[in-house]
Amino acid sequence: MTNPSLLILPGDGIGPEVMAEVRKVIDWFGANQGLNFDVSEDLVGGAAYDVHGVPLHDDTMAKALAVDAVLLGAVGGPKYDTLDFSVKPERGLLRLRKEMDLFSNLRPAQCFDALADFSSLKKDVVAGLDIMIVRELTSGVYFGEPRGIFEEGNERVGINTQRYTESEIDRVARSAFELARKRSGKVCSMEKANVMESGILWREVVQKVRDTDYPDIELSHMYADNGAMQLVRWPKQFDVIVTDNLFGDILSDCAAMLTGSLGMLPSASLGAPRANGRPAALYEPVHGSAPDIAGQGKANPIACVLSFAMALRYSFDAGAAADQLEAAVQKVLADGARTADLMGAEGGTPLTTTQMGDAIIAAL
Amino acid sequence: MTNPSLLILPGDGIGPEVMAEVRKVIDWFGANQGLNFDVSEDLVGGAAYDVHGVPLHDDTMAKALAVDAVLLGAVGGPKYDTLDFSVKPERGLLRLRKEMDLFSNLRPAQCFDALADFSSLKKDVVAGLDIMIVRELTSGVYFGEPRGIFEEGNERVGINTQRYTESEIDRVARSAFELARKRSGKVCSMEKANVMESGILWREVVQKVRDTDYPDIELSHMYADNGAMQLVRWPKQFDVIVTDNLFGDILSDCAAMLTGSLGMLPSASLGAPRANGRPAALYEPVHGSAPDIAGQGKANPIACVLSFAMALRYSFDAGAAADQLEAAVQKVLADGARTADLMGAEGGTPLTTTQMGDAIIAAL
Ligand SMILES: CC(C)[C@H](C(=O)O)[C@@H](O)C(=O)O
Ligand SMILES: CC(C)[C@H](C(=O)O)[C@@H](O)C(=O)O
Repeated sequence: MTNPSLLILPGDGIGPEVMAEVRKVIDWFGANQGLNFDVSEDLVGGAAYDVHGVPLHDDTMAKALAVDAVLLGAVGGPKYDTLDFSVKPERGLLRLRKEMDLFSNLRPAQCFDALADFSSLKKDVVAGLDIMIVRELTSGVYFGEPRGIFEEGNERVGINTQRYTESEIDRVARSAFELARKRSGKVCSMEKANVMESGILWREVVQKVRDTDYPDIELSHMYADNGAMQLVRWPKQFDVIVTDNLFGDILSDCAAMLTGSLGMLPSASLGAPRANGRPAALYEPVHGSAPDIAGQGKANPIACVLSFAMALRYSFDAGAAADQLEAAVQKVLADGARTADLMGAEGGTPLTTTQMGDAIIAAL
Repeated sequence: MTNPSLLILPGDGIGPEVMAEVRKVIDWFGANQGLNFDVSEDLVGGAAYDVHGVPLHDDTMAKALAVDAVLLGAVGGPKYDTLDFSVKPERGLLRLRKEMDLFSNLRPAQCFDALADFSSLKKDVVAGLDIMIVRELTSGVYFGEPRGIFEEGNERVGINTQRYTESEIDRVARSAFELARKRSGKVCSMEKANVMESGILWREVVQKVRDTDYPDIELSHMYADNGAMQLVRWPKQFDVIVTDNLFGDILSDCAAMLTGSLGMLPSASLGAPRANGRPAALYEPVHGSAPDIAGQGKANPIACVLSFAMALRYSFDAGAAADQLEAAVQKVLADGARTADLMGAEGGTPLTTTQMGDAIIAAL
């Protein structure tokens, strides 16, 4: 039997540093549990642009489509700010999402007990918080046509198109309901149906999927602006939230920041099951490339490590290994291990990226 | 000389209740300071639909265009949830914004000292917070064409169009820069230029207006998802934020909730100066129609009262009267007056809507 395959795309900024720690974790599972992967590595984002002149080479795209899972670090940085839109680092990531058809983006917003004090919100508002945001990732205003900057009369106009078909809404709703069945059975769907027709269709289809195939799910609907308010007011009212690509981008970042654990949060982007039963899958931390601290050994590798834990769970049927890795992370935090981003006012010397990786290995 | 004219549109839910208190305030200024208005009243939203079958009658629209300022309560409610999109209560408000050409929506997010404990955020994060969000209000995905739900192949597709012309961006940027000159001189512009071409044009035009005519302004740019994060993390890093219609909808609600003062926050929607020098103007509370507490005398009238204060300042050149009214509100809060929404865990009997209105009059 061949090993499952994993493509690693460290990307830009702190991506390579945090990924180096994940490789230690991958190696640990191979050496100690016979959990071996065929690991390959390639370029994405600015790193790919620097070499190939495009943020994702066709060969890399082909590899991503062939492997069992992709693990990505981060893309982007000020160095690439002035590049043409079509070759910006972000386009590499967006191409992966689109061509792998990763329609369901799972973004847990979880508050780690040891870090509850670290949130800008009051402790009772966020302690124990555990929300799952399911963001549609392959459609909406991110990909709709027409798009561009056009001449009109004697001025220019910038145009993007929000577009959702019934089947696009249907499949992401199902993935949210499936997830909710393994959690509290409660889903809140967010859109702007009071202003946008695409939101009306969204609400209608989500409700229909619930009524037809998931009558056990408790479904509610909320306007996205109110959703942002309610997330800030009392986030524990939510369990699973399902929303579109653009609202999901903003609301999941908002939810992530509530927890005070931004450097800790992983994500999974999943497609439909393929011939071998495994979904197309890409895992990446929620945080970005953090160019301001890149290359200084300050970055927190935990979000990327936990993204690998999600890969173990969702791509490799290795739920026990995922649990073990997550427990190791909880343990190092409980023991007081902190990278610079997790240091409170009390001070002390933060761990480097490498030291945090070593601590996780030790806890395993 | 004739009095300046004011059209009052109480609307739905708690709108009529809070507006009744504002009328007392208006009368007080007439009786005690000779500040008289020609006040008329009309229907908007569900209240208009119930009578006319449309959420804004053409006659009301004509009146709104003729008066010096409009003061609106709130629109919407579950009773109207199943109405066709074209006659939903919100369409009345959107028609006012569009036909009055109210492109600049000022939404202060201010934390009242007496209420800092009431935020879900830590006190040091929000105490003294005073942000002004300038939201473009007449374009973007709220109004772009094509829009609707269409048949495509054998399924339906929901479509909306994000659209910004250079001149639309130019004028709202100017209004933000003008405001910033009266404050800290600092503006942060938010979009998704990494994903949307309309965001690229937005960023470019805002920067050009700054470089050409407002070199004294310190301008920064931020992606809207990061903006949501930064608002939660450390909102005091911002002074004036300028953003588009949809991002502004979500980010301003998020910012409003940070303050813990949602029942307190007014807004002004302004157009270009008209022949008489006054801008087209509509003032309304940030909070909605709150159908759950409507008709029970529980609503907090302060946001609507402060909306009238904004009218005094921006439409009627009565800055001193506005200051006086705002000071009266600060005083009743400092004295411990609280409506139900402002009651903390310590308990006690809340003031009714009317009692809060009376307290403000007494403080004047
Ligand atoms: C990098 C960028 C294209 C991306 C997005 O907007 O989706 C990021 O913000 C995210 O949320 O993954
Ligand atoms: C009521 C609704 C149409 C409106 C909007 O989306 O603009 C409201 O949320 C607001 O922010 O004023």
